[in-house]
Amino acid sequence: MQKGPKMPALYAVIMAGGRGERFWPLSTSRFPKPFIQLLGSSSLLQDTVSRIRPMVPLERVLISIGAEHFETARRQLPDIPAQNFIVEPTGRDTAACLGFCALHIERQDSEGIMLALPADHFIGDAAAYLNAVQTGIDSLEGATGVVFGIAPTRPEIGYGYIMAEKPAVRADAWPVVRFVEKPDESTARQYLTSGNYFWNSGMFLWSNRTLLELFQRHMPETHAGLCKLRSLLGKSSSAAKIGTIFSALPRISIDFGIMEKTSGLRLVPVHFRWDDIGNWASLDRVLAPDALGNVALGHHVALESSRCIIYAQAQTVATFGVSDLVVVEAYGKVLVCSKDKAADLKRLLAALGPQEG
Amino acid sequence: MQKGPKMPALYAVIMAGGRGERFWPLSTSRFPKPFIQLLGSSSLLQDTVSRIRPMVPLERVLISIGAEHFETARRQLPDIPAQNFIVEPTGRDTAACLGFCALHIERQDSEGIMLALPADHFIGDAAAYLNAVQTGIDSLEGATGVVFGIAPTRPEIGYGYIMAEKPAVRADAWPVVRFVEKPDESTARQYLTSGNYFWNSGMFLWSNRTLLELFQRHMPETHAGLCKLRSLLGKSSSAAKIGTIFSALPRISIDFGIMEKTSGLRLVPVHFRWDDIGNWASLDRVLAPDALGNVALGHHVALESSRCIIYAQAQTVATFGVSDLVVVEAYGKVLVCSKDKAADLKRLLAALGPQEG
Repeated sequence: MQKGPKMPALYAVIMAGGRGERFWPLSTSRFPKPFIQLLGSSSLLQDTVSRIRPMVPLERVLISIGAEHFETARRQLPDIPAQNFIVEPTGRDTAACLGFCALHIERQDSEGIMLALPADHFIGDAAAYLNAVQTGIDSLEGATGVVFGIAPTRPEIGYGYIMAEKPAVRADAWPVVRFVEKPDESTARQYLTSGNYFWNSGMFLWSNRTLLELFQRHMPETHAGLCKLRSLLGKSSSAAKIGTIFSALPRISIDFGIMEKTSGLRLVPVHFRWDDIGNWASLDRVLAPDALGNVALGHHVALESSRCIIYAQAQTVATFGVSDLVVVEAYGKVLVCSKDKAADLKRLLAALGPQEG
Repeated sequence: MQKGPKMPALYAVIMAGGRGERFWPLSTSRFPKPFIQLLGSSSLLQDTVSRIRPMVPLERVLISIGAEHFETARRQLPDIPAQNFIVEPTGRDTAACLGFCALHIERQDSEGIMLALPADHFIGDAAAYLNAVQTGIDSLEGATGVVFGIAPTRPEIGYGYIMAEKPAVRADAWPVVRFVEKPDESTARQYLTSGNYFWNSGMFLWSNRTLLELFQRHMPETHAGLCKLRSLLGKSSSAAKIGTIFSALPRISIDFGIMEKTSGLRLVPVHFRWDDIGNWASLDRVLAPDALGNVALGHHVALESSRCIIYAQAQTVATFGVSDLVVVEAYGKVLVCSKDKAADLKRLLAALGPQEG
């Protein structure tokens, strides 16, 4: 029985690499940001899986992680098949990560679509998010790939931007003009008012086959490595060889390695609340502050305290007469940090020494 | 064999009452200030006993405590005989406390001398302290009592003062002129430069017999109660009666009740470092701050932090880019408080509610 033209299957690749520095002491090298319960009772990784689940069955959700986090990821996501955890022998940034995942998808389905998703971002509206993904899929035909651009709401200097060309007639996807680096403040103000600059969400959509072609064209060295890896996948006792080859891949992001060099990309503008939650001080953009601007997770009692960010994992945190502080209690450590130093936390970790971090 | 005239025996009464508010969360109603390890590995009460021990054998050290702290005090001072813990049925301030202790001393030794000592003060020089006590004993003959006055080192407005008359010729003890209330700042400056105003240390010395006479003269109601109690002490099954009588004694301090009304007192001026450690912000007067003015007890790591007071009981406290804070981790609670609110901590405890405090 012949059916209509078969829709290509959608695969979600959730990139759950990352270090433990920015949310210390809640995040550590053992439990980096994707694995921590930053916003509630589930981890950011679990949230990312739950969010895409209505569109992607768990058999087609791949989790890209470092070897040292395999057990944690498995425990947090017991319903995802074991073979869907794509363990990176060493962290080689997002280009190598996604190239390696493309090989795994290819083995299952040479016609698949890959949706690449960071595991550790905040998304404020799950329905709008799914709509955007669907719009991306609908916009993919005739494009090399689709990027999701967040309509900026402030002159943010901490994000990369994507410039797109507003179509003459209303359209769901705009041609990408170029990727741009993190701007200075006055440039960011221009971007904010321009209407055709968007925050780079790090979410991408491609035909898996096209992505591998883009590697061949723009990152031939990585592509050569991927071809060697392709022949080793699924063979027993090839782990050491895979490790050696993967670890020799260039360490570069997908943005630099491929996206910035690729023409024919389309951008889906999205308007839901989004944040990369870069450090503790981001939390008051993501969670609802009280009347005095405090954001608290866990048991917190405040008196004459304002604009503080409090995370109490197991204990009671009481603040009195303080403002603009980050206070975190987790895993036997207490951090008290001025908000304006929160982005710089790795300097504190250096002072703490390796056994504390 | 006749010896020389027998020296009256010295009894130390250590007053270990008090609330748990000012050093929360380290101090609580279960473990008030005398029982906490505020300055090191021993409690302030233990420090007070150790300090006087070279002059007073433990059989003559009495510990005045509330019933709810008897077990804690016994555990902290296992070498002091059980009958030396003078349990107050209810807290009735220092006049009732010392009157009750005077009855206990009287039963052992009608000629004894009582040295009354707060259990929760800082003394910077143990040898100078013992010298001062000896000077007090030597100055007691012909006086109604001896007080120890701390030569002020700053215009402190948080302490009561004692004015004494500088003798024309150098003397170890000066006649007391009057007790004065906590002054305002300009008055405190005058006191500081005057040379005959001293901080009231709360340490007193009397012949036990004289003290009971002073009760009779200046606090007849309390004295009548003490006379009833005298006849009940040491009798079995009189605990309920003792509780009823003691709890009806006027609630008043020894300063107000007796010292301010008593003529013929002498003051021993002392120059060692002393502090009543009234709240967390006092600690940087008592402990040695680092180059940036931080005082830390427990495991603390600081980066770009200044003039902070840190107490880490069980965890690591890390501070980054903050100043003039009190940070305390103890018993599953974390306090982050601006130094200038530290004296006001009970307002925070009211906000916390009874189960937290």
